[in-house]
Amino acid sequence: MNVAVLRLGHRFERDKRISTHLALVSRALGAEKIVFDAKDLRIKKSVDAISDSWGGKFKIKFTDSWRNCIRDFKGVKVHLTMYGININDIDIAKLKARENIMVIVGGKKVPSDVYELSDYNIAVGSQPHSEVAALSVFLDRLFEGDELEKDFEGRQRIVPQESGKKVEKV
Amino acid sequence: MNVAVLRLGHRFERDKRISTHLALVSRALGAEKIVFDAKDLRIKKSVDAISDSWGGKFKIKFTDSWRNCIRDFKGVKVHLTMYGININDIDIAKLKARENIMVIVGGKKVPSDVYELSDYNIAVGSQPHSEVAALSVFLDRLFEGDELEKDFEGRQRIVPQESGKKVEKV
Repeated sequence: MNVAVLRLGHRFERDKRISTHLALVSRALGAEKIVFDAKDLRIKKSVDAISDSWGGKFKIKFTDSWRNCIRDFKGVKVHLTMYGININDIDIAKLKARENIMVIVGGKKVPSDVYELSDYNIAVGSQPHSEVAALSVFLDRLFEGDELEKDFEGRQRIVPQESGKKVEKV
Repeated sequence: MNVAVLRLGHRFERDKRISTHLALVSRALGAEKIVFDAKDLRIKKSVDAISDSWGGKFKIKFTDSWRNCIRDFKGVKVHLTMYGININDIDIAKLKARENIMVIVGGKKVPSDVYELSDYNIAVGSQPHSEVAALSVFLDRLFEGDELEKDFEGRQRIVPQESGKKVEKV
């Protein structure tokens, strides 16, 4: 299963940190790449620096046309939105059977055709909260926790501790 | 089970949005309150406005002494950190049996005594990502999805749709 995340509505001034969190979550929770609809190289730089030391093959991409990006995607398209069907009522096993999944996360205002272009509109609850949270819970349910045990084969890694910090150079 | 979230290391200039996301996630995913170690009334204002229309009894509090706040807490204290034990290896049922849980989320630099003051140091994976993501996945696992079906009894509510948006005034 390959998961790509598409982040819509990135605002250069306002969203740098939230978009960086979305990219880091995508990487850490099992996605292969994230695509932004605005070319913000600051995010690419900071996330690439993380990958450089912590490992993995995560990719940051940009698109000039997110509509084409959705339309041309060969696979199932999942839009995360508080207006959609509760994730508790979604057959995740059916999604897991698909080879390629695009997860679309928006900002405040998502153009209405995104709802139509997507195969699923899924709500991580119907309360306002956070696109970072929605993406995290969705990926954790999709991968059933396996994503948290992946070996990223980086130049450093954490050795889990009951208390304190231990980082090993590899 | 009552869950309180304690957010450490809030920086007034830099963290407004991330801290707001942490508060909204706490509210939407079943916590009773969030406590900040810096008095940022902008966050309280925006989250209280959400509660006013979307419902619930979520509370935003501030503390002058987060150490006392942890020490004086009657219940189990869970610190979310990438250096801790993988959440996949934690007996969540044992946690769920406790009446009161404090979830501690930090920023970049968490004072080292937090590891000692906490009963559990839990990692939502050992890769760098996002405190919003860590909190979300932890709460979703703790409440096993039930948190996403809570009725907030607000003045408006979403009627889940396969496509498009439907909001009802109550």
